[in-house]
Parts: sequence; C-alpha cells; structure tokens
Amino acid sequence: MHYNTILNVTGKVIKFEAALMVLPLIVAMIYHESIKPFAVAIVIALVLGQILTSFFKDDSGTILIRDGFTIVSLAWISISAIGCLPFIASGEIPNVFDAFFETVSGFTTTGASILKDVEAMSKGLLFWRSFTHWIGGMGILVFVMAISLRTPGRSANILRAEMPGHNIDKLVPKTKNTAIALYLIYMGLTFIEIAFLLAGGMPLYESIVHALGTAGTGGFGVKADSIGSYSAYLQWVVAIFMFLFGINFNYYYLLIFKQGKSILQSNELKWYLIFAGLSTILITALIMPEVGNAADAIRHSFFQVSSIMTTTGYSTVDFNLWPNMAKTTLLMLMFIGGCIGSTAGGLKVSRIVVLGQALKNHMKNTVNPRNVRSVHLNGKIVDPVATQRIVVYFMLYIVIVLIAFFIISFEPFDFETNFTAVIACMSNIGPGFGAVGPAANFAEYTDFSKFILSIVMLIGRLEIYPMLILFAPVRAGRK
Amino acid sequence: MHYNTILNVTGKVIKFEAALMVLPLIVAMIYHESIKPFAVAIVIALVLGQILTSFFKDDSGTILIRDGFTIVSLAWISISAIGCLPFIASGEIPNVFDAFFETVSGFTTTGASILKDVEAMSKGLLFWRSFTHWIGGMGILVFVMAISLRTPGRSANILRAEMPGHNIDKLVPKTKNTAIALYLIYMGLTFIEIAFLLAGGMPLYESIVHALGTAGTGGFGVKADSIGSYSAYLQWVVAIFMFLFGINFNYYYLLIFKQGKSILQSNELKWYLIFAGLSTILITALIMPEVGNAADAIRHSFFQVSSIMTTTGYSTVDFNLWPNMAKTTLLMLMFIGGCIGSTAGGLKVSRIVVLGQALKNHMKNTVNPRNVRSVHLNGKIVDPVATQRIVVYFMLYIVIVLIAFFIISFEPFDFETNFTAVIACMSNIGPGFGAVGPAANFAEYTDFSKFILSIVMLIGRLEIYPMLILFAPVRAGRK
Repeated sequence: MHYNTILNVTGKVIKFEAALMVLPLIVAMIYHESIKPFAVAIVIALVLGQILTSFFKDDSGTILIRDGFTIVSLAWISISAIGCLPFIASGEIPNVFDAFFETVSGFTTTGASILKDVEAMSKGLLFWRSFTHWIGGMGILVFVMAISLRTPGRSANILRAEMPGHNIDKLVPKTKNTAIALYLIYMGLTFIEIAFLLAGGMPLYESIVHALGTAGTGGFGVKADSIGSYSAYLQWVVAIFMFLFGINFNYYYLLIFKQGKSILQSNELKWYLIFAGLSTILITALIMPEVGNAADAIRHSFFQVSSIMTTTGYSTVDFNLWPNMAKTTLLMLMFIGGCIGSTAGGLKVSRIVVLGQALKNHMKNTVNPRNVRSVHLNGKIVDPVATQRIVVYFMLYIVIVLIAFFIISFEPFDFETNFTAVIACMSNIGPGFGAVGPAANFAEYTDFSKFILSIVMLIGRLEIYPMLILFAPVRAGRK
Repeated sequence: MHYNTILNVTGKVIKFEAALMVLPLIVAMIYHESIKPFAVAIVIALVLGQILTSFFKDDSGTILIRDGFTIVSLAWISISAIGCLPFIASGEIPNVFDAFFETVSGFTTTGASILKDVEAMSKGLLFWRSFTHWIGGMGILVFVMAISLRTPGRSANILRAEMPGHNIDKLVPKTKNTAIALYLIYMGLTFIEIAFLLAGGMPLYESIVHALGTAGTGGFGVKADSIGSYSAYLQWVVAIFMFLFGINFNYYYLLIFKQGKSILQSNELKWYLIFAGLSTILITALIMPEVGNAADAIRHSFFQVSSIMTTTGYSTVDFNLWPNMAKTTLLMLMFIGGCIGSTAGGLKVSRIVVLGQALKNHMKNTVNPRNVRSVHLNGKIVDPVATQRIVVYFMLYIVIVLIAFFIISFEPFDFETNFTAVIACMSNIGPGFGAVGPAANFAEYTDFSKFILSIVMLIGRLEIYPMLILFAPVRAGRK
C-alpha cells in the first residue's frame, strides 16, 4: 500500500471539490442567499486538501490494485464528508447523520432524502444537492485523474476501482481521451435536456436542477411531489432523458465519433429496451383501470419504469399505491438497473445478460457435462473468469442486501419498507415502497440506520469492492 | 433419453406408494374411520403402476444424467398426484389444487397447509399427511432404487438427482448399503423420539404423527397451534429432535459404524451449531421483555430457531408477532437451512460455508490476483468446479425466489406475506410471516398461486435441477 500516494490523491480530490462548490456559491449569490455555508466548506476543503497534498507526496511509481480501491473509497467518503458541510453550516440540515446521508445520497446518485420539506430549502443548497448527482454520476476520480496524473497508465487501477464496468468494453486505448470524450457527451446531453425543459416552460433554475438530477440518474428535485406537478410534456422530457442517461455512454461515443453499426450488435442495449418495454406494457395494463385513460397510463408507466430502471428515482405519481404486481415489476427493475458505462446503478443489464446466459449454459452443462458453451456479450465472447466474477458479484450484491436488511431490521418499519429501503440504497435509486415510498422519505430512520444506509449507497455506487476492501481489510499476501 | 426406463421406474415408485398407503388405511381402521379414501387411492396407484411397469420395460443398460433428473421429477410429481387422492376421495379437501398443495407440502417436507381447521380432519388422513413427510424426508427413490434395481451402479444418476448433497461427501462405496444404513438410522431416531414423546405423556397417535413430522423436518401436526399447547418438556423434545434431524446423517453413521473422530473435522457441523447458537441467543434477548422469564424465552427461542433452521415449521408461539429483528433472524435461517445429507431444506449449511470461503478468497484474489486460495469443507479441499456450481446454485435459488415472488404478486397480500410464502416453500419450511405466519395458513391464496407454490416446493426439495430441466427442456447435444 502506498499511503502517501493514496492521501495525496485524496487531497487532490478534496481541492477539486472546493472548486466545484464555487458553482452553488454563485447560485446562492444570484438568489441573494447567504454564501457563508459554501464559503466555510470551500475554505475547509482547501485547507484540508492542501495539508494532504503538501504532507503526502505522490511518490510511488505505480498504483497497486489495492491502492486503487483504497483511493476510490477514501475519496468518496471524503467528498461526502466535505460535501455535507454546507448543509450543516446553513443550519438547514443540522444533524450530521442527516447531512451525511443526504450528501452520500447525492454523490452516489441515489436521491434518497431525509428532507421532510424540500420546498423550504434555499436555492443554493438545492442546486448543490442536485449538482452532487451530476458530479457523482460520471465519477469524480475519472475526471481528477484525467487532468492531474502525470502518466495516464498509472490511473488504470483507480479507474478500474471506480468504473468497473468500463473494463468489459474498452473504447479507446488512452484513458484520458476517453474520459474527456465521455464527459463532453455527458455535458452535451445535460445541456440538451435543459433546452428541452426550458422549451416546455420550466423555469431556468428548475430546468438546471432537474437536468443535473436526470443526468446523474440521481433524483433530487425541488418539489415534494417530485415531477408530479409538471406538465405532461415536461414529464415526457424527463422520462426520455432518464432513459437516455441509463444507456451505455460508449454507444453515444460510437455514434458520434465512429460508425454506429456496432451498436446493433449490443445485446445489452437490446435487453435494456426489452426489459423497459415489457415492464411499461405490463404496468400500463395494471394501472389502466385506476388511471382511466391510455395516454396518462402510458406516461406514468414509462416514467416510473424509466426512473426506477435507470435508478434515478423521480416520480410523477405515488407508485407505492399501485397494484402489487406493478410494484413487484418495479422491484425487479431495481435489481436490474441500467446499462454498464452509464450513470445508472443496480446490477446492470449487461451483467444480467451474462448471468442469464451463464445459467442457461450451466443447465445444459448439467445435463450434458461434455457440452461447454461460451457466454456472449455485445458480439464478443466473455471469458469464463469474467463470467465467474459476475456470478460472484451477483452473490455479493444479494448477501449485502440481506445483511443490511438484517441490520436495520431493529427499526419498527414493516418488511416492505426496510427491504426496499436497502435495495433502493444499494441500487442507488432513492425511493422504495411503504414508508420510504415516493411520497415519503428516510427521515424517520434512526441516525444509526441512516449511517448504515449511507454505507450501503457507497457500496452500491462503487460496485462493492472498494468499500468492502476498505472496511474488511484483508491481509494482502505480498505488497 | 430412455423413456421406457423412465416410465418403468415411475411405475415402480407408484406401486411402492400404494404399499405405503396401507399404513394410513390401517390407522383409519383402528379409529373406525372410512377406509374408502385409501382403498380408492391404493387401487388407482396399483393399476397405474402396473400399466407403467407392464407397458414400459426397463430395457436400457445405463441411466443417463438427463434420465436421472427426469425420473426424479416425474416420480415426485406422480407420488404427489397419487398421494392427494385420499384427501379428495374423503371429501375433506375437495379442491384438487388444495389437495395437491397439501400433498406436495407433505412429501417435500414443507409443512405449509391450506387447512383452515386441522383439528376437524380424520385421524387416518392426518397420519397420511405426516407420513408423507417421513417418506419424502429421506427421498423415495433412494429406497426404491436400493430394493429394485438390478445393479447398484445404475442408480447413480438417479440418486445424484434426488440427493445432490450426498455427492460431496461419499460414505461407503456401495449405494445400496449406504441407503439402507441411513434409513435404519432415520427409523431408529424416529422411534427414539416417539419414546421420548410418550414418556412426556403425549398420546401414542400424536407421538407418532409428530415424530414423523419431525423426522422428515416437515411440520404437519394435529393442532391449530402446532406444538404450542404441549408441555415444556414435550416442546424441548421436539426442538431437540428437529435439531438432530437437521444434522448430516453421515455423522450418525460415522458415530455408530466407524470412529467418530472425523466429525470433529466438520466445519459444516461447527457452523450449524454457531448459526443456531447465535440466533438462539439473539432471539432470546429480543423476546425476553415480552416473555418475562428466561426459561420460557430460551425454550421458545431455541424451538423456533431449530424449527426454522431445520426447515421443519413447527411452532410453540406465533413468531409473526415477534420484534422485527427476531423475525429477520429467522428469515436469514430460512435461507441457510440445515446440513446437507439431512432431511432439512434451504441452501444448506455446507453450501453457506463454501460460499463464505469462496467470497473471502474472491476478495483476497481481487486485491492480489496472483493469490489463489482453495476452499475447504470438512477437512477436504473443494475443487473449484464444485465451488463454482455452489455459487451458481445460490444464484439460481435467489432467481427462482424472485421470479416466484413476481408471479404471485398479483395476490392482494402484502410484501412480507408473498415474499416469505415463496421462501417458506422454496426452503421447505412451511410457515412464513404475515398472512402465512404460524397462526395462519395458505388457504387464502388462489388455486393458481397454490399450484405455483407447489412447484416451488418441489423445486426446493429436489434442489432445483430436476424440476428446472423437466420444465425448461434443453436440447441435449448428444444422447
């Protein structure tokens, strides 16, 4: 372990966060709100960041796998700890566990909130809240690495830890260029959404906040009823953009910079469309009797499917009141999640595709042991070791959900509430069902549970390994 | 596929079932109840069995893996279909879906019931109900094979399909002798339990019924409150015997016929005791405030832990009313289950032990890819292919639970009820929580859901593969 490098990079990330907090500070100024909360946070971040980068030099030639995991988990915990300072300093979220929960929820693009009255919050803080989604969506280290590390190759183990999905489908050999290209696509799509929202009459501030929340597949908004009180047009815009941000960004890259043919080979995209399509049809049919007209039923159905599947968490209706089967459909989507290489959480469609094939092959192999078949993803063969890792990943996912569910089960809430609270945090969705449904929030949980759920959000966002390796240190055989 | 052999063996199993039904017929005679229900069933079974064995000759030299799976699933479906005839013929369970559910629940040793008033049932039928537990516990084919197949080697693929766990830890080379030895232990323990129950003042009939239900880790009894109204002594007897029947029978074999030292090497047994011990302590602490005195709290805690972990399903209290965390502890035990090679269901402790080590090694390997460690079970190295199969098995288990939960989610019951109904059937436990808690039953489900849950019970009892391969036929590459 190269502790100097680890702490040095953490320091860089914290300084970078200080720079990012200038934006909400400007928003606060525009709306004549106090800039003190952000000023305090920026100063603390700068001082702390400077201390870390001054005292600990990035002196190691290579960054080991274990270093990468540690850097990523430490960086994410640090930006969450620093990022919650404005909420505390403003007095609007005085409890430190609440503020930490809200900030982790932001950076991990979960969107679960402890705010009982979001509409009473000041505009600067709400902007910051949604901005954390946008920052966390693409991964903060990807950016810091791209602009700060001397040699791009060094960052491989950090990027591997922060964006595991990207390994499966490498785009361009130079990480730096890829990161910048993907960030440009991300920004571009965000601006296009803002334009569409403005065109539908949404005020500029709200358009920006919602576009940031959509882009990061986060789900923080400005109203108690989420997107419920906006026009049908605006709901469609958000629904479609959530769906777009749930797609592997590589496809946009291929579409823009190369020929788009290879996208047609993607069985990930195919299944993303199939899952979303089937769920939308099923839920439309199930809510039709209640909703009354087809246009509304389709809109609400697609919006909620898109929101849950991309793990965003916006809502246009209180889907907790939907028929059981519609809710269970959403629950299945909570596990599946969006595409790998998008800002969405969950198990990810490409893993589901690999798991499905692996199970099918396993059954065939059980009947006929000589019959060995390979797993295909997007036109390429997935090697057995990678397949096995995905199977283990699924298992880890379920085990963590069960353990977290067990831990928070001392809470007086019902089975549905606790269970979906955990899965909503693990898959970075936001709302669950029951007492954490879209019309409710996480405020009623104890501080202890809020902390546990914060950890679960981080575990989910960083795809398990970095956090698990940080919290359950394993004796590495060699350095 | 050797269809002739498959149907021939199925015929033999049905004829064997006809012979077994003579016992409840005798019970009915003793209590001066109508013997018609059993007589009808026996005649039908004999005729059907004779037709199958006459028309289809066991003419194939070898029994393929696929044949084994098909025989096992077909045999289990057949004995359930035949076994429900007495319930239907008596008019006491007139609905065919109810009767099928109840019988599948019996043979699979689940113990989930659709009976609203168990105490109104005739004694012959209640005996038959508990006797199905006893038959199903050890596996009906093991016995039929042992006494009917000409060469013991031929039956390997059938036994592999019916008792997958036994592969891991082979005892004696000759299957026939092993089967007989294990059956003798099974009978012996059952008789000892009957003696202990009689000693506590339980009437003979009830002692036999409960011993059969305990031995098979089934859970069918004769009273609405299960074991709740019996004395503390009797509750302890049942609790301890449930626990004993959840232990790998191989250990009893080793204890009796060989030296018992190798049992100490068993980390399966160690973890079985650890899981049960920790759960008992935790639950005792959690229910203490309500129960009031330690002796009762420990008894109720251990009874329920033993009952759920061994997937029996008897209860001394309505544990659905327990604090959340006590219930969640039981939920975890529902997944874990008992030891492999016992009559218990669930994922099985040895699989959990292997999975735990596999996960630990996986984490170490993630940090240090050159570091490859092996998984140990009971003092032996588990080869990587077997480990991988267990990981996939876990995944299949969860996927089936989720799919079944999705299918029955059109029912108006809450999340907790539907979810635990599925896991209670999949792990062959019996009661779940909520509307399928120990004080309730499965009667309120629709026939469709009862059928789905019946299939889930069979999938769980036969450890997934036979049923899945029957229902989702895969094109075998070669014969």
